[in-house]
Amino acid sequence: MATVYFDHNATTPVDPSVLQAMLPWFSERCGNASSLHEYGREARRAIDEAREKVAAAVGAHTTEVVFTSGGSEANNMFIKGAAALLGQGTLAVSAVEHPSVIRPAERLARRRWQVQRLAVDGEGRIDAEAYRRTMSLRPKLVSVMLANNETGVLQNVAALAEAAREAGALFHTDGVQALGKIPVDFRALNARGVNALTLSAHKLGGPKGAGALVLDKRVEIEPLLAGGGQERDLRSGTENVAAIVGFGAACELATRQLAERAARLFALRQRLEAGLRASGAALFGGDAERLPNTVCFAIAGFDGGTLIAHLDRAGYALASGAACSSANPGPSHVLTAMGVADDLARGALRLSLGAGNTQAQVDGFIAALRGTVARLQRLTALAV
Amino acid sequence: MATVYFDHNATTPVDPSVLQAMLPWFSERCGNASSLHEYGREARRAIDEAREKVAAAVGAHTTEVVFTSGGSEANNMFIKGAAALLGQGTLAVSAVEHPSVIRPAERLARRRWQVQRLAVDGEGRIDAEAYRRTMSLRPKLVSVMLANNETGVLQNVAALAEAAREAGALFHTDGVQALGKIPVDFRALNARGVNALTLSAHKLGGPKGAGALVLDKRVEIEPLLAGGGQERDLRSGTENVAAIVGFGAACELATRQLAERAARLFALRQRLEAGLRASGAALFGGDAERLPNTVCFAIAGFDGGTLIAHLDRAGYALASGAACSSANPGPSHVLTAMGVADDLARGALRLSLGAGNTQAQVDGFIAALRGTVARLQRLTALAV
Repeated sequence: MATVYFDHNATTPVDPSVLQAMLPWFSERCGNASSLHEYGREARRAIDEAREKVAAAVGAHTTEVVFTSGGSEANNMFIKGAAALLGQGTLAVSAVEHPSVIRPAERLARRRWQVQRLAVDGEGRIDAEAYRRTMSLRPKLVSVMLANNETGVLQNVAALAEAAREAGALFHTDGVQALGKIPVDFRALNARGVNALTLSAHKLGGPKGAGALVLDKRVEIEPLLAGGGQERDLRSGTENVAAIVGFGAACELATRQLAERAARLFALRQRLEAGLRASGAALFGGDAERLPNTVCFAIAGFDGGTLIAHLDRAGYALASGAACSSANPGPSHVLTAMGVADDLARGALRLSLGAGNTQAQVDGFIAALRGTVARLQRLTALAV
Repeated sequence: MATVYFDHNATTPVDPSVLQAMLPWFSERCGNASSLHEYGREARRAIDEAREKVAAAVGAHTTEVVFTSGGSEANNMFIKGAAALLGQGTLAVSAVEHPSVIRPAERLARRRWQVQRLAVDGEGRIDAEAYRRTMSLRPKLVSVMLANNETGVLQNVAALAEAAREAGALFHTDGVQALGKIPVDFRALNARGVNALTLSAHKLGGPKGAGALVLDKRVEIEPLLAGGGQERDLRSGTENVAAIVGFGAACELATRQLAERAARLFALRQRLEAGLRASGAALFGGDAERLPNTVCFAIAGFDGGTLIAHLDRAGYALASGAACSSANPGPSHVLTAMGVADDLARGALRLSLGAGNTQAQVDGFIAALRGTVARLQRLTALAV
């Protein structure tokens, strides 16, 4: 029996139609998009087309889309690149950001920047009063994600950006988990004060190795990668043509299927949550508006790593904490920020649904979880 | 008639066996290598195996290989990352480096670093006397490439590194064009004083989107991409599993075929050069030791861009100057550094051979070049 994949916030399989679109660009159409001959020109056209699809998926203009190697690069690029030109000041990032936002912020903290962590409430939403206080410090840069990778909790980014703009700050939002799961409209967000948006291909059925920073053209940043001058000199390095083509195809597909996908995933999530609640699980951010595909939960008294190993053997692949930091010990910084006690946070599991998942898989999982918990309880009882 | 691809220094088609090795990692084996379940563990094993192959190709230890999104990233990563920890001082880079070395150096020049351009002789080789003088300034960092992308000219990196080490400098070499064309032995280079080596997959039959910095473990650098802590915390971001697997497969293939490939390409190059010389072409770096696949030449009185366009229509794809800067006007900085007059440098074409090229293609090209030149001469005569 093949293992059921329940870890779509970590990464997704490339959609078969996306892979088909990518294939010609590895071999017969191998050109470097900077080359002037026909091989180069056809690669350039393919990138232009992909840029149109990515831009269309988020309501941006093509000139606002800067391709990168992924979401972590785009986050680093904006935080470091904007800070380099702003010189110094206050940077505010939410306490539940991805490490690729938090760590560049920590680096700035060692270089004449004041870094403020924006507190969240028990459901993982930015605390409005704390946010207002931080804005009164007149930060130069603010970064708050659209949707959290661990809990799926959504932030009201438009309203936060509006307040940041009034305070005179540039506002960045990490949209990696949101894209393909909920509507993301850069034009609308930009009108409210969002200057930059991070995207990634491999979270929505595209390949690893492609992402983008969607960047307000009025905002200047220093490039992270300097060299051949690709991407309007904002990101040098030979363009990864096949991956960019795949990113475009995945965006086109996700845009077309968004409403249907979201509804289907939400129905599965509700079924899953009912089963989890009936099994005595605590749901983190359970009362907040969340991505339709994500559930973060724990069963008191059970270690997350142990449960994951047992469930993996039972045929279900899910994550403990964020995939990007599964290597890190200790409780998730997201759950800690939400005020979850360490003991319970150490038990946290994340189940993130995707295109291939079915109701039968969800039902099978709930049964497997109950079986695992019962078995572990018996073992513990025997050991005592 | 399909266009003959003569631009392998810009990029190469992915070898069919390499693409086969990559394919499973897009869909059925889609795991994030940081995930703890079986999907994640098999992705981790695939990366470990690829790391062994890349390390073996350059005689490095696996722990010295840091995967990146490509050569430009690896160059930026070392120059910026080493400089960040060294604080300030003198940085010496050759005048013929790739823009992804030169531009990070220029950035440091605006931040309390003294940047020295190492002069080259008329054949494109580092000028020994100028190098000695620069080493007497006791630079902290030196970067000289193994082989030039435009001319193919090789540098005696081991000897240069030895002198740099005596001067107390860290030494980096860009091996992007060398890998797969000539032997590259990091262990031997490291013994002579080379601390870091940049590699790229797509120049040797691997995919775009994968490269590496091979880094002496005694040398600390600040990461360019901070976040989830991948690559021993030196390069965060979800690993591009398929591209890394392809990089490993391409290295394994290139290592096995190196002697045979190099001999075959060298024979083709000699035939090509004989034809070019007989057609009145000037060969840049023609008397220097060069990559077996690269010829950079000009025909006095003919513009490079014009020749390329005509040759492209005649079915031959080659480059003017470096592929990475074909978008830039003006003569190549490499040829200018070699003392080539602007007029002649503007006529420069680069023909870089690869696995698929044949003697018949070379002969056809020489005939097409002569035909093009004769036709352009007639047109010029008519216009006068």
